[in-house]
Amino acid sequence: MDCVFCKIIKKEIPANFIYENDKSVAFLTIEPVNRGHAMVVPKHHCKDILEAPDEELKDVILTVKKVAKAVVEAVKADGWNLGVNNGESAGQVVMHSHFHIIPRFKTDELKHWPHVKANSKELKEVSEDIKLKLKIH
Amino acid sequence: MDCVFCKIIKKEIPANFIYENDKSVAFLTIEPVNRGHAMVVPKHHCKDILEAPDEELKDVILTVKKVAKAVVEAVKADGWNLGVNNGESAGQVVMHSHFHIIPRFKTDELKHWPHVKANSKELKEVSEDIKLKLKIH
Repeated sequence: MDCVFCKIIKKEIPANFIYENDKSVAFLTIEPVNRGHAMVVPKHHCKDILEAPDEELKDVILTVKKVAKAVVEAVKADGWNLGVNNGESAGQVVMHSHFHIIPRFKTDELKHWPHVKANSKELKEVSEDIKLKLKIH
Repeated sequence: MDCVFCKIIKKEIPANFIYENDKSVAFLTIEPVNRGHAMVVPKHHCKDILEAPDEELKDVILTVKKVAKAVVEAVKADGWNLGVNNGESAGQVVMHSHFHIIPRFKTDELKHWPHVKANSKELKEVSEDIKLKLKIH
């Protein structure tokens, strides 16, 4: 399969690995938002979180916890963001699920997306629609 | 404890719940980035991912998978972002760990933070520093 992350996992393409176990790997992205920006990637090829097997996801989130602690200490970050882009419209570029660990600094001036107070009628409607979908599955 | 999410979990403050099991809850945020913006929250009070017990984290990520599928279907999203802000400098406002599920639409024009190509010497140095921290723990 022509997947750049599968090739990195198989060591066919070099990367700055920081961690590996039987289910996941972690390496630094070559295009960081901030110093220490790392990715945790399940070894099993899956497009996104919805396609990832449960056992892989459980391993990935524990690997995120372990790696993020080390990243924060190594680059002396003040905090960090976990981010996963699922789908092209969400900003996903490599179609093999990956978890971004982005170290944050008080001075980095990165801003979150704007959010606005929703009206309670709309919230109620949306929550009913979601609950209906959850009942179906 | 004066934690607004603990109060929501205990049903002392109302919320638009969409899912609940023994370890996690999910509800809509009242200040969405996009329609259907939901939060998955471990019931156990913990400040962030680094403080969350492993068993809670494993449950949260599987709940994220389950809830995100329903959210995407309910609001007919094209994709979705998972985001977790760890620490004030990362944009965390409520100091009880929570996982944002943000539905995305091709037309929503939200942009990711800028990232630039790092030089390979710096990447190597940072990865060595992180590996050292991982060895200590």
